[in-house]
Amino acid sequence: MARHSLRDDIFASAMKLFLKHGFNYSSVQDITSDAGVPKGSFYNHFESKEALGAEVVAAYWPEISACATILADPKVAPLRRIKRYFEAVNNYFAEREFAEGCMIGNFSAELSDQSELIRERLAEVYASWTQAIEVAIKAGQTDGSIPKQIRAADLAKFLLCAWEGALLRARVERQREPLDIFAKVMLKKILC
Amino acid sequence: MARHSLRDDIFASAMKLFLKHGFNYSSVQDITSDAGVPKGSFYNHFESKEALGAEVVAAYWPEISACATILADPKVAPLRRIKRYFEAVNNYFAEREFAEGCMIGNFSAELSDQSELIRERLAEVYASWTQAIEVAIKAGQTDGSIPKQIRAADLAKFLLCAWEGALLRARVERQREPLDIFAKVMLKKILC
Repeated sequence: MARHSLRDDIFASAMKLFLKHGFNYSSVQDITSDAGVPKGSFYNHFESKEALGAEVVAAYWPEISACATILADPKVAPLRRIKRYFEAVNNYFAEREFAEGCMIGNFSAELSDQSELIRERLAEVYASWTQAIEVAIKAGQTDGSIPKQIRAADLAKFLLCAWEGALLRARVERQREPLDIFAKVMLKKILC
Repeated sequence: MARHSLRDDIFASAMKLFLKHGFNYSSVQDITSDAGVPKGSFYNHFESKEALGAEVVAAYWPEISACATILADPKVAPLRRIKRYFEAVNNYFAEREFAEGCMIGNFSAELSDQSELIRERLAEVYASWTQAIEVAIKAGQTDGSIPKQIRAADLAKFLLCAWEGALLRARVERQREPLDIFAKVMLKKILC
């Protein structure tokens, strides 16, 4: 039990520091110090910082998908689900004043060339995330509320990319405006 | 003269390594080794790695704006200029097989929270870049080829964010598809 908890502590500290400072700025020493465990214990639980990074990426998806349940709610009209979903994620990041940002976008920028293992995990998370948006768009295309001109999979991928880019810019500007513009263009141009 | 050239060598190595490995993965030692200069000489020319990073960001805009001249060419119809511009930048990154990516997007993800100095430079580059796209959109709104429903400044900001997000995803997927979807949705939904 103690052993399991030590691993959890290291993992939680890594999640926190990778979000706060990025992957390369957070050393194994920083992570074990934050977790309050001896540095040597790290390698009893993780093969490498890279392996830990890949696990953290995979674990980030359940955090994202808490919001994503909004996308799958059959009691709400599809277009409204998509609108509410992006409102929820935008509010989430606005409450944090756009510090930290999204681990998936951050690691995509920082590690796509550096770690094949992490790049593969990122691709998996993007695929699941896009799929969740695609399902709602498809439902809208089926009930006629969203035009079929462009297939749901492409619209979903486009929206997720556009949102990640808007969050990056919101972080640089320290303001919500890029995310509000994203929501406006999505509703007034892309999904209608 | 020799002193000037040493500074240039350090600067060129920093530009190369920051693009290749990011800011935090590239140490002053890495940069001076790559430049073939003594580590101690770094601080004769730059106050800190952060100050160098801010200069590199500012210098990245002229590189971007080489493509951006396409956006300002009055001999070409505005919508066609925008299409050609994004074709040019997408080809640029496709030729590099999506390694490295865009310094502006990468540093936004890695450094927005870490360096106020670099964050401010990023905001300036984004503003200039958005402005270049806005001018072309405005020309299209004036000649009636682009609808006026959403103001040019917002459309320009949206497109730049969406493109940065698409490039991030192209890097993770190691394929051009996200950039092609960006171009398709831009032309079929956003600018028409």
